Amino acid sequence: MDLASLATRTGSRILLVVVDGLGGMADERQGTELEDASTPHLDDLAARGVTGLLEPVGPGITPGSGPGHLALFGYDPVRFVLGRGALSAAGLGVPLHPGDVAARGNLCTLDAEGMVVDRRAGRIADEEGRRVVARLNEAIVGAEFHHEKGHRVLVVFRGDDLDPRIADTDPQATGVPPMDPHPLDPAAAATAALVSATLEEVRGVLADEPAANGLLLRGFDTQRALPSLRERTGMRAAAVAVYPMYRGIASLLGFDVLGPPADLSEQVRLLEKHREDADLFFVHVKDADAAGEDGDRAAKVAAIERVDNAILDLIAAADPGVVAVTGDHATPSQMAAHSWHPVPVLVHGPRCGRDETDRFGERWCRAGGLGTRPSTDLLPILMANAGHLAKYGA
Amino acid sequence: MDLASLATRTGSRILLVVVDGLGGMADERQGTELEDASTPHLDDLAARGVTGLLEPVGPGITPGSGPGHLALFGYDPVRFVLGRGALSAAGLGVPLHPGDVAARGNLCTLDAEGMVVDRRAGRIADEEGRRVVARLNEAIVGAEFHHEKGHRVLVVFRGDDLDPRIADTDPQATGVPPMDPHPLDPAAAATAALVSATLEEVRGVLADEPAANGLLLRGFDTQRALPSLRERTGMRAAAVAVYPMYRGIASLLGFDVLGPPADLSEQVRLLEKHREDADLFFVHVKDADAAGEDGDRAAKVAAIERVDNAILDLIAAADPGVVAVTGDHATPSQMAAHSWHPVPVLVHGPRCGRDETDRFGERWCRAGGLGTRPSTDLLPILMANAGHLAKYGA
Repeated sequence: MDLASLATRTGSRILLVVVDGLGGMADERQGTELEDASTPHLDDLAARGVTGLLEPVGPGITPGSGPGHLALFGYDPVRFVLGRGALSAAGLGVPLHPGDVAARGNLCTLDAEGMVVDRRAGRIADEEGRRVVARLNEAIVGAEFHHEKGHRVLVVFRGDDLDPRIADTDPQATGVPPMDPHPLDPAAAATAALVSATLEEVRGVLADEPAANGLLLRGFDTQRALPSLRERTGMRAAAVAVYPMYRGIASLLGFDVLGPPADLSEQVRLLEKHREDADLFFVHVKDADAAGEDGDRAAKVAAIERVDNAILDLIAAADPGVVAVTGDHATPSQMAAHSWHPVPVLVHGPRCGRDETDRFGERWCRAGGLGTRPSTDLLPILMANAGHLAKYGA
Repeated sequence: MDLASLATRTGSRILLVVVDGLGGMADERQGTELEDASTPHLDDLAARGVTGLLEPVGPGITPGSGPGHLALFGYDPVRFVLGRGALSAAGLGVPLHPGDVAARGNLCTLDAEGMVVDRRAGRIADEEGRRVVARLNEAIVGAEFHHEKGHRVLVVFRGDDLDPRIADTDPQATGVPPMDPHPLDPAAAATAALVSATLEEVRGVLADEPAANGLLLRGFDTQRALPSLRERTGMRAAAVAVYPMYRGIASLLGFDVLGPPADLSEQVRLLEKHREDADLFFVHVKDADAAGEDGDRAAKVAAIERVDNAILDLIAAADPGVVAVTGDHATPSQMAAHSWHPVPVLVHGPRCGRDETDRFGERWCRAGGLGTRPSTDLLPILMANAGHLAKYGA
C-alpha cells in the first residue's frame, strides 16, 4: 500500500519507543526478560491498549539493527538494504562518497596465537577506545578510523571505485581467528587486498595493547539513497537516540536527529523541547540489547525496568496521541545474541481498541489484538491510530 | 494462487452474508457493538464453526465499500481499483461508455455562507431525494443525475474524451465549503471545468431547497473492466442486495444480480427462489454500517440483532453447504466512520473444523481457528470448505 497517497496532515503525534533487543526467549526454567521484569507502567499501557508480537524480517530471520529498525519504520528490510558501515557513517556524520567503502569495526582481544578471546575487547571504556583509535589514525594512512562508542569503530576506505562486496572478518565467535576479508565478487578483489593490508597494519600498531589488540570488520557498504519517511508517509519524523548507529539510520531516512542526548533523562528533555516539531518521535533505548548480548539476564531485566520507570516521563514530555513500545528484534540473554523470536508490541491511543491482555510480555501479547505480524505492519497501524491515513477507495 | 486452475464444479453452495460495517472498536467503557449485541444464532454458528478476524486492505488501512467487497470476493483491492462513480453506475444499471465520467454525489445542506452544514442533507427520504434529482435533470443539460437512495446521487458526464482525474469536492467535514473539482492531471482540465460549471448550475437550481441545497461529488471514475468471479474461480455467483452500490460491484464482477429486494425478508425469498442458480450467494445487509456512520451505537446493535434474527431464515432459504458471516470493514459508532479495525468472520460447514470460540464477536474471534488474516483469504477458504478446489500439485 502506498501510504503517501493516503497521508493526511490532520493527525496527532506518535511516540514510538524502541527498546533495542526487547524480545526474549522463554525456556523450561524461566520466562523472557520482559515477562519476568517488574513493569507496572508498561503493563498498564498494555491493559488499556492493544498488544501483539512483531516479526522484523520474516519467520526465522534474525535481524541486524538496520533491518530491525527499517521494518519498524515501514520499510521492507528485504527490499531496502543498509550496510552497517553506511549506517555507522551516517550516525557519526562522516560523509561517504560514491566509490568509498565503510565498515563497522569492533576492537577485540586476540591471544598469542591470533585467536579471538573477546570480540569486544572487554567492552573497553569510551576513553580507551578513543585513545586506541587515535593511535590507528596516526600510524595508518590507507583508511580512516572513527571512534563510535566503547569498542565500536567506523572504518572508511576512500577511493574512486572501491567495491563493498567484501566478506565480514568478524567470526562471530571466540577461540577462532578473524576471517580474511575475501572478495564476494571478482570486482572487489582490489578492495579486499586493500582491506587485508590495512588489517595487517592494524595488528602491528596495536600489538602492545593489553585489551584492544585486534579489529574485526563487518557490514562493508557504500552510501545508498533511501526514500525519506516524509516521502513515504507524509509525516515529519524526529529521532531521540543516544547511540550513533540509530541516529544514523534515522538520518538516512530523513528524520530530524535531535540532540545528541547522553541518557534517558536527556531524551525526555529533548522530547519536551521539540514536541511540536514532528509527527513521529522515535526514541531509542539501547541497554536491554547490550545486556542481552552479554548474556546478562539480570542486567537486561534491569534495563527493561528502567524503561518502565521512564515511560510516563517520556509520554508526558511528548504528549502524544498514540504511544507504541516495542523492540527492533529479540536478544535473548540465553543466546547472548540477536534472535528471530517475535518481539512484543503495545499500542495505546483513543482509537486503538481493546484486547484482553493486561501485562506486557511475550506470553500475554501473543493473545493480543494485533496478533503476530510483520514489523512493517506497525507504522500504518500507528498512522491509522493517530489519524494520519485517509480512507482507501470509495 | 490461481484459483481458476484448481476450480472444480463438484462443490456445494456457499452463502456469504456481508453485514456492512460489522466490525467495531472496544474501548475502556464498552465492547464492540457485535460483542454487546444479543446474537444467539450467530453465536451458535460460531460455536459450531471456525472464527477469525479479517483485515480488508492491509494493516491500518480504512477501506471504502469498493475495496472492502473486492477483498471479500478474493480480489486484491490494491491491484483492482474501482471508483465509486463506476460502482454506482453499475448498481443503477446506468451504462457507462468509454469517455464518460461518473461520480458519486451526496445531496448536502449548505448555510448562507456556503459552508457545509450537513453532508447528507439530513439523510433526506427517498421521495424527497427523487424530487430534487428530477429538478436537476429538468434544469441542467450538461450532466445526468440518477437518484440512488436517500441523499445519494449518481452524476454522469457524457463525452468522447472526458478524463476522470478530478479531485473530490466533498470536504468530508462540516463548517467548511465544498472543494473545487480541480484536475489531478493537466489532461483533466476541460473535464474539471465542465464539472465546476455544472456544480454552479446545481447551486442555482437548488437555492430554494430547505435541506438539499448543495451537491458534493467524489470518486470520479470511468468504466473499468474487471475479470469476472467466474473466470477467477469457476463459480457462478449471485448477489442479493438491497442497495445499488453493492448490486453494482457484484454486477461488475459478473454476478447475477437478483431482485432488487426491498428488505431482508425479500432477500430471504429471493434466495429461496434462486437457490439452484449459483454456487456463491452474496447477501448484503447495509443497516449496521449506516448506524455506525451516524454514531448511533444502539441502532448498530439493533441492526446486528436483526441479522441474527434472520440468519436461520437465510440459511434455510439458500440451503448452503457452507455459511460465512462477516463484514466488508469496521464502522465503529464511536468514530462515526469506516475504520481499519479487523472484522470478525465465522465459517460453518461440515469440513470447517472447530475452534474454542463459542460467541461471535471480535474478542472471541481473535482466538479463533482462522486467526487474523487478509480478507482476500476468505474466498479460497470458503471454496475449499464447499469442495470447489481440487488438490494443488501431485
